[in-house]
Amino acid sequence: MAQQPTTLADAISGAEWIMDGHGPRNVQVLKEALEQVDVSQASDMYGRGEVIERFERKMAELLGKESAVFFPSGTMAQQIALRIWCDRRDLPKVAYHPLSHLELHEQDGLKKLHHITPLLLADKDRLITLEDIKALQEDISCLLLELPQREIGGQLPPFGELEAISAYCRENGIRLHLDGARLLEILPYYEKTAAEVCALFDSVYVSFYKGIGGVAGAILAGDKDFTQEAVVWKRRHGGDLISLYPYIISADYYYEKYGGRMARYYEYAKELAALYNGCEAVKTLPEVPVSNMFHVHIAHPKEQVEPLLIELTEETGVAIAYYVNAYDDQTSSYEVSLGERFGTIPKDKLAATFQRLNEKLKALGRG
Amino acid sequence: MAQQPTTLADAISGAEWIMDGHGPRNVQVLKEALEQVDVSQASDMYGRGEVIERFERKMAELLGKESAVFFPSGTMAQQIALRIWCDRRDLPKVAYHPLSHLELHEQDGLKKLHHITPLLLADKDRLITLEDIKALQEDISCLLLELPQREIGGQLPPFGELEAISAYCRENGIRLHLDGARLLEILPYYEKTAAEVCALFDSVYVSFYKGIGGVAGAILAGDKDFTQEAVVWKRRHGGDLISLYPYIISADYYYEKYGGRMARYYEYAKELAALYNGCEAVKTLPEVPVSNMFHVHIAHPKEQVEPLLIELTEETGVAIAYYVNAYDDQTSSYEVSLGERFGTIPKDKLAATFQRLNEKLKALGRG
Repeated sequence: MAQQPTTLADAISGAEWIMDGHGPRNVQVLKEALEQVDVSQASDMYGRGEVIERFERKMAELLGKESAVFFPSGTMAQQIALRIWCDRRDLPKVAYHPLSHLELHEQDGLKKLHHITPLLLADKDRLITLEDIKALQEDISCLLLELPQREIGGQLPPFGELEAISAYCRENGIRLHLDGARLLEILPYYEKTAAEVCALFDSVYVSFYKGIGGVAGAILAGDKDFTQEAVVWKRRHGGDLISLYPYIISADYYYEKYGGRMARYYEYAKELAALYNGCEAVKTLPEVPVSNMFHVHIAHPKEQVEPLLIELTEETGVAIAYYVNAYDDQTSSYEVSLGERFGTIPKDKLAATFQRLNEKLKALGRG
Repeated sequence: MAQQPTTLADAISGAEWIMDGHGPRNVQVLKEALEQVDVSQASDMYGRGEVIERFERKMAELLGKESAVFFPSGTMAQQIALRIWCDRRDLPKVAYHPLSHLELHEQDGLKKLHHITPLLLADKDRLITLEDIKALQEDISCLLLELPQREIGGQLPPFGELEAISAYCRENGIRLHLDGARLLEILPYYEKTAAEVCALFDSVYVSFYKGIGGVAGAILAGDKDFTQEAVVWKRRHGGDLISLYPYIISADYYYEKYGGRMARYYEYAKELAALYNGCEAVKTLPEVPVSNMFHVHIAHPKEQVEPLLIELTEETGVAIAYYVNAYDDQTSSYEVSLGERFGTIPKDKLAATFQRLNEKLKALGRG
């Protein structure tokens, strides 16, 4: 007999269905993108050449901006955007959410490399509002808004509030930057085009390996004089690689393949969140998702939830979670982000999995 | 009849043989590297996973260092190496050659991002010597040596001088960093292993798209505590991509394919330099190459040499140069860097091309 899996990763590797994403992050993702490409197509060369310039023009058009620059990463693109806006005002101060990617996941690059001070707006567990910005005690060069706010489950402000924030920033000389890592993912909820959302912002970053499912890479877009400066900083950061085409080709390929299906993934998220919210001791954040993502909170400690999820995966063949975090001593949490895979799970299998999850959680609740 | 080509690039695109490199920089370079890879191989994830860790271990072993980190670019890797050594001594000062990559090609990233001041050692047209280092009037944290010194034709100091520089730096608390973008290319001349050369240095950078012919990417190697810091800075720079495998797989593939053939390319370079030096008004730098590269200097202005090279390429079907620079008002120059392609050119074709070049230069000399 096979040994019992001891980790969630083990259980997932044996699962027949996985809830998250489009598929495994493996070499096939790149190979598939390269299949339809003429192999004699020339590499980009340090930011120049047809493969990069064509994609940059295409993305500038999508985002309704004058110009766009392809970057190896969003970390690099966003630090540079903030640096440019700070240099323009000669004021190295910006504001963003306390759970911004720049604050949590970048080893303080903004502070260590650019000597920019971020003011943290709003409480950790809620969105930034216009009132937060009005209440700022210090002047700032740039406000960064992340849509959706990933670390609180992918929440979004009403579009009207975004418009008010944008107007306020313009009146007060504050540049507005969009962390739109998941920009396409929010368009179905807002019922807006990318360009309509981006029109509220002076600069925009978009990622190609999240909902879009590419290998890596990012676009930074804005006015021409902004992107020209961004290209110089990209060189300084060591991001102006001789060849970025592996990322560009896959970004373009998966943008075409999945970029138009975000409404479907948004519907999947609402369907799945409803299944979760029907289980004892579970709530999703937001309760009704506004994109393809949400967070799951389970009112039991990680030490109990993790083995429960391993068992559930083994019993049903359906992996509903990749990992579990200890949200606090009494609560577990994890993120769900939906793509093609969710649609492949048979509905009866899905219903049975959540019925089983509910039974297990009820048993846990009874102690 | 076809129109006459008007640029060197046009002429080259119609040439049957090209002197430089391994082949065109196109998508096939990546596709070939991926052909033998199991498509279910998992992506690296933010610097972790088998594909990246295995290659980092392999390169650490090659270079005789405790640890190695894969970077998207050498620009990023080297700035970070210098930053770490400066932080260790709390002295943001380094020294390198006036024609160092950091000084010429990085938009002053070292100064703008890391606030490190470089002292420029030696004259532009010669190598750094031990005497230059001893004559430094200011204390420095780190000395960067580039082997070979690319912008002066790829020159190398005698190995004994390297040993003396290394010993002097160790005695004086100066860290020695190797810009080994072309490290494998110099081993045949030194008759040393990579580890023997690297033993003289505290940290080492190697590139994978020069002589090795990969798509992009670099390795930075040193002690474990050095590379651990480098990983943090890599994240700060925006270089800790979710997936670097397109570069890693191709780096490994072309390292295996071409890495062991540098002695052959070195012989090619000596053979080709002799052909150049047999032509009127031409000299190579160095006269006898010490790696697979050298520079060609032609004692006529660019305005005359460029059309001459276009004609030569059209007449012979052999492209001997990719571009021509105005070295000064009276002199043209370009770089030659040899790989697989040179060996495919028939010897009689080669001889006839250089005979024709010599005739043309003689005619030019007669005015």
